[in-house]
Amino acid sequence: MPIDFAAKKALFHLPEGLIYLDGNSLGPMVRTAPARVDQAMQAEWGDLLIRGWNKAGWMAQPRALGDRIARLIGAEPGTVVLGDTLSIKVYQALASALEMNPRRKVVLSDTGNFPSDLYMAEGLTRTLGGQYRLKTVAPEEAMSAIDETVAVVMLTEVDYRTGRRHHMADITKCAHEMGALVVWDLAHSAGALPVDLAGVKADFAVGCTYKYLNSGPGGPAFIYVAPRHADVARPALSGWLGHAAPFAFDQSYRPGQGIERMRVGTPPVLQLAALDAALDVWDDVDLREVHAQSLRLQDQFIKGVESRAPMLQLATPRSHQMRGSQVSFRHPEGYAIMQALIAEGVIGDFRAPDILRFGFTPLFIDEDDVARAIGILARIMDYGTWDKPEFKLRAAVT
Amino acid sequence: MPIDFAAKKALFHLPEGLIYLDGNSLGPMVRTAPARVDQAMQAEWGDLLIRGWNKAGWMAQPRALGDRIARLIGAEPGTVVLGDTLSIKVYQALASALEMNPRRKVVLSDTGNFPSDLYMAEGLTRTLGGQYRLKTVAPEEAMSAIDETVAVVMLTEVDYRTGRRHHMADITKCAHEMGALVVWDLAHSAGALPVDLAGVKADFAVGCTYKYLNSGPGGPAFIYVAPRHADVARPALSGWLGHAAPFAFDQSYRPGQGIERMRVGTPPVLQLAALDAALDVWDDVDLREVHAQSLRLQDQFIKGVESRAPMLQLATPRSHQMRGSQVSFRHPEGYAIMQALIAEGVIGDFRAPDILRFGFTPLFIDEDDVARAIGILARIMDYGTWDKPEFKLRAAVT
Repeated sequence: MPIDFAAKKALFHLPEGLIYLDGNSLGPMVRTAPARVDQAMQAEWGDLLIRGWNKAGWMAQPRALGDRIARLIGAEPGTVVLGDTLSIKVYQALASALEMNPRRKVVLSDTGNFPSDLYMAEGLTRTLGGQYRLKTVAPEEAMSAIDETVAVVMLTEVDYRTGRRHHMADITKCAHEMGALVVWDLAHSAGALPVDLAGVKADFAVGCTYKYLNSGPGGPAFIYVAPRHADVARPALSGWLGHAAPFAFDQSYRPGQGIERMRVGTPPVLQLAALDAALDVWDDVDLREVHAQSLRLQDQFIKGVESRAPMLQLATPRSHQMRGSQVSFRHPEGYAIMQALIAEGVIGDFRAPDILRFGFTPLFIDEDDVARAIGILARIMDYGTWDKPEFKLRAAVT
Repeated sequence: MPIDFAAKKALFHLPEGLIYLDGNSLGPMVRTAPARVDQAMQAEWGDLLIRGWNKAGWMAQPRALGDRIARLIGAEPGTVVLGDTLSIKVYQALASALEMNPRRKVVLSDTGNFPSDLYMAEGLTRTLGGQYRLKTVAPEEAMSAIDETVAVVMLTEVDYRTGRRHHMADITKCAHEMGALVVWDLAHSAGALPVDLAGVKADFAVGCTYKYLNSGPGGPAFIYVAPRHADVARPALSGWLGHAAPFAFDQSYRPGQGIERMRVGTPPVLQLAALDAALDVWDDVDLREVHAQSLRLQDQFIKGVESRAPMLQLATPRSHQMRGSQVSFRHPEGYAIMQALIAEGVIGDFRAPDILRFGFTPLFIDEDDVARAIGILARIMDYGTWDKPEFKLRAAVT
């Protein structure tokens, strides 16, 4: 059954008058989330106290929600677990992958990867010492740079700045042919476009839930390990909840079965409750349809902006094959332009040095929103209303 | 002004008829927490959306709450930051400490340390490779085992099983004399007893907030770095929020100033909101008074149990100097006895193989609770009502 986008939109809390094109940074709240979190607070924590770990299913939640996310990213059941932040999950995946390919010492990534992924890889290679090193190339050179020195290819499928999308199947195949493993970061993929981790034979994947999946600020990350690796991968962050028998309190670490070993510490129950509510909205959604609708909205936006605000330069590839769920434009005064937009109720975001980002998330953004956003942006550019001191003052978080 | 314990007790949500002696595992909820979290959900996330990072102060929260915890653990302002889980914070602290003492390769800990701390150290030493190794000794041998091979002494101040307390000042001094650094885990100290990190010249400390500090299930951990080390310590988990300029999106990592560098990924805003509410209860509390009252309650409990249920064997030291905030008894049928207690509304917990744990947290436990708990435990032992199949069936989380 096709998605009833208007019905889905009604499930989100969207402040009156706001056009929210920043679901790629922090997704909006589903209307049921406050009650679900309040239940976790009062009926579970408040009344059950420590008994909530068993009676409210808190301990099982990271796996149960992992299975619901698995469906959205083409992963086999039992291969995904929630927890920690995306940076921590990158470290885990990369450490395990490197250990599985011990004769090689190079991590290959690209300059379009999210900086935290690169920083975590830097920290890990430094800790590993020896000849380990991180090599980054331009996004379009990522595939050709895979050679027989590369132990692990670590890429984010969709570039956080430009929205450029890697060809996951081809790169994974190429990496395997060259004897490398692949870690995919799905931060801008999960909930945005169809992902087929099992189909492309991905080795590891990680992602976050507070963008497209609406889990709320600081919602937990997830990690995927291919079933063929799940009982082989050694966890570098060997926390007690990844132990084979956490409540035996053994003195030595023994990794748990399969994806269980990628758990580290106590799961964030309140954040997981918010994710639980959000996934109710996602459970029946076909990501192919979501992405097709997103591309329609993107095309509408690109066409409108290019005709009515031609001083903005498109930074996103025109090919549908190479696009995620966002459209980016460049302008030297991008920061001030974005502030002017936000002041008029169109929320996108800015990424240094000159990128204006707009996310097109069809579960709560429609053609009318896009048309209005184009009109407001065109007016700001026509009248130069961005050129004010208050719009040039940089905030702590941009 | 002395603490008005009855007034404090009224600030907690405590289910009718329950005697909750498990605040050392998961602290109860303060009454204001649901409204505070709901505000973070609806007024902040719901209405501000991405603007919450600046306008609701989300980005500053891990440091702001860190300063409130700093007061409770005798840390200098600006030396504590919230985030991640305790296991992750152990890894961070230990990795930084080891790198600061590069000529030595031994991490010294004890068998009374929480297993996850040992597991994380195992994982880290394995990742570091070379001659790095973890050495564990019996708790009472920890100080004498510090020799010139030890790079870092990593201990939990209060033993999670027995409640035995290390002498933090003496061990820290001894470690420094022997050229070692010290990482203190305050999981069973923060909010339980007076800690003086600055006074004892601790190097690193970590702790959790969901036990004595009432932040709720999966609440974030904290890390302390002594001011003299804060700009020297290299973070192994070098995430973007620990970068000197996270929103510059540089390709290479540069550690932030001081404790900022111990941040990793996006902070868990909802869990931090619950902690924020809880700390309102803690802000005016003198931990010396809390611990003195806890010891009184412990003495009452020990005396009552030893006279009325003498088959239980005290596992906690009798000396006040060597006690935290819990009392443990041993019994071969400890698991079943604890289940029988829980069935009668006295909640403590069990730790394999034979430990019954009882936490004495004076902000919400009083003499009357202790007297009733003793009576119920005595009756269970007198009549052997623990000896039932349903009490012997082990749950997933014990």
